[in-house]
Amino acid sequence: MSPGRPVLPGADKVRRTLTDEASVPPSSAPTREASTAPNGTDVAACGATSATSGLVPLVIHRRDPKPDDVEIDIEFCGLCHSDVHATRGEWGERPWPLVPGHEIVGRVSRVGVDVLGFAVGDRVGVGCMVDSCRECENCLDGVEQYCERGMVGTYGAADPRNGGELTQGGYSQRIVVTEKFVLRIPEALDPAAAAPLLCAGITTYSPLRYFGVEPGERVGVVGLGGLGHMAVRLAKAMGAEVTVFTRSDAKSGAARELGADAVIVTSDPEQLAAARRTLDLVIDTVAAPHDVNDYLRTLRLDGALFQLSLPSGQMAPVDPGLLIRRRLTYAGSLIGGIAETQEMLDFCAEHGVVSDIELVAADGLNEAYDRMVAGDVKYRFVLDTATLAAGTGSAQAGEGQA
Amino acid sequence: MSPGRPVLPGADKVRRTLTDEASVPPSSAPTREASTAPNGTDVAACGATSATSGLVPLVIHRRDPKPDDVEIDIEFCGLCHSDVHATRGEWGERPWPLVPGHEIVGRVSRVGVDVLGFAVGDRVGVGCMVDSCRECENCLDGVEQYCERGMVGTYGAADPRNGGELTQGGYSQRIVVTEKFVLRIPEALDPAAAAPLLCAGITTYSPLRYFGVEPGERVGVVGLGGLGHMAVRLAKAMGAEVTVFTRSDAKSGAARELGADAVIVTSDPEQLAAARRTLDLVIDTVAAPHDVNDYLRTLRLDGALFQLSLPSGQMAPVDPGLLIRRRLTYAGSLIGGIAETQEMLDFCAEHGVVSDIELVAADGLNEAYDRMVAGDVKYRFVLDTATLAAGTGSAQAGEGQA
Repeated sequence: MSPGRPVLPGADKVRRTLTDEASVPPSSAPTREASTAPNGTDVAACGATSATSGLVPLVIHRRDPKPDDVEIDIEFCGLCHSDVHATRGEWGERPWPLVPGHEIVGRVSRVGVDVLGFAVGDRVGVGCMVDSCRECENCLDGVEQYCERGMVGTYGAADPRNGGELTQGGYSQRIVVTEKFVLRIPEALDPAAAAPLLCAGITTYSPLRYFGVEPGERVGVVGLGGLGHMAVRLAKAMGAEVTVFTRSDAKSGAARELGADAVIVTSDPEQLAAARRTLDLVIDTVAAPHDVNDYLRTLRLDGALFQLSLPSGQMAPVDPGLLIRRRLTYAGSLIGGIAETQEMLDFCAEHGVVSDIELVAADGLNEAYDRMVAGDVKYRFVLDTATLAAGTGSAQAGEGQA
Repeated sequence: MSPGRPVLPGADKVRRTLTDEASVPPSSAPTREASTAPNGTDVAACGATSATSGLVPLVIHRRDPKPDDVEIDIEFCGLCHSDVHATRGEWGERPWPLVPGHEIVGRVSRVGVDVLGFAVGDRVGVGCMVDSCRECENCLDGVEQYCERGMVGTYGAADPRNGGELTQGGYSQRIVVTEKFVLRIPEALDPAAAAPLLCAGITTYSPLRYFGVEPGERVGVVGLGGLGHMAVRLAKAMGAEVTVFTRSDAKSGAARELGADAVIVTSDPEQLAAARRTLDLVIDTVAAPHDVNDYLRTLRLDGALFQLSLPSGQMAPVDPGLLIRRRLTYAGSLIGGIAETQEMLDFCAEHGVVSDIELVAADGLNEAYDRMVAGDVKYRFVLDTATLAAGTGSAQAGEGQA
């Protein structure tokens, strides 16, 4: 925690079961001084060297800041399901090694000569993209995530402005990113608990805003994981009444702790039937193939269901009759633009919204992945990058499931 | 045609291949005087007496106008695919007999004492609904088609304000409808060609307006039947650039005659690929089960595909990745409210938009149904109700396909 600040929003929600809080002060990293080497720096990281390697210790190179670049000493990086899919080759073969991580929070260690918006010591963040073409209609409209030439992902993407070099993500001590894609992290937010805002937060905030949720409107949330728990908090902060859909009653208490006004156990047909035509919006965060018709039925006239996770298999067909009879929309949404991400971070600071996290050390990453796949985390793992430098000896090739 | 009016918009588009124009003046019906009988009137009609009867001559009863009622001497009634499904029992068993027809145009013959908006002789129309609860949020918002208690359909529906009597539709000489559900048909419109506006017109107009199509935006239309050809004309009248999707090149000429700016033959993968990310909105009028992903791919950021016809079987699953990567919406829409239907009729009068029709006599209805199922009509059959009184001897039980 930041010294001298008594209680930060969300600080009470940070759980540290996978690391030793005493030995790993999250926001102090005295050994990570800005390098003055002319040709970039080598930093410790953790990543996959093949689809079956699991996460292993690596050393990667970071460029020195170009005139528009911000160099960031990473403090924390959230673990997203995308990281699991990518490092296990589940989204296709990729160039290796691959250092995942796109929920990055740290402090500015150096800035390029043209950088105006950031200074050394600022707490900043990087989300799912580190650049885009900046010229297409969508980029000019501030929705860089929909760049017509494709945004440059924070990891595993060829970076055109840097010689096509493969980007490497936030499971590392340092990253260098063009100023336009760096976010300000309000000091009022606990930095570890704020990290998941950069992906899970903006992914749920953006469709809530795009739909235009207003106070008193009724929002349903399907799935109570990293995205789902953010959707509950954000929708509540916007003044909505929130209903959580859960397969079993076991998560009811957790849903209400997060602020849900109602819980519907979807294995009970009577509860589902009673919820018909009650909601204005459903945020569906489930990645496993499922049947959205159950949730479409809970929508009122002009309601919308936003699906936010790419399913791992084929979904059940949508019943067009449901859409026609109440003018419903079945929609998708992808993270958010840079300006909207900043808006979301400022909104979270104002409303005290952060993620519930478990801090994890580098040597616990593979175990954390397995627990994520099993749904055994409340609600987001966050890597403490201070544990990278000391080595990650226990990570073994092949430990991760392909 | 109305005497004394030289050329009405759309009059040139009326084709009369199934009836004899000379012997059946469309807008004169001298034998249909307003009845003064105290207990309603018996009128000639055509309907189904079972799912296998086909359409046969019938005599049905119409109530005398209650204080808020408008009695309409029907001149024309469009033939909608819904009529085929309903009379052939394809949407489930129903009480028989069933007189279909919900694209009704005629002249007011009597009005109830409280009716203020209509006078005897006015040209009026009735669409897919003749009442609703008038109390629910949706009715109060003017979207009676989404009445929470269910709108009262123009045929085959129990009518709560009239003792639960089954409504009977427009394949008849007369209908009595509460004033609130009667539309004004601008005299500038050819009455026969205007009839399909009451269903096919409003069904396509409403999503175009709901999406908010603006001049210069690009609208795709899937399916070039009754609905599709209206969508082309209406979108063009709104200033959109219109692209028609058709399975074979055979309809290209017809599409361009309707005003389409471009035609994409969907059996040609190269044409489909070239159309990716070019459209703002797709109006999908196809009722047969199909794969909407091909059309979703043609949408730009924030684009929407509106499906307007209930498919007769299960649709292919939607790829959520398409929705997510461009924030698309897959939506439905059902006809339009009464106020919006009036707005559409006035818009059509202003822009000279009507349907392309083939007039059909009562004894040609069963043949017309078969041709509709075969897609062999450009683009809407309209019944000339003047042919009802003379008998419909050629319609035989069992002629219609169940």
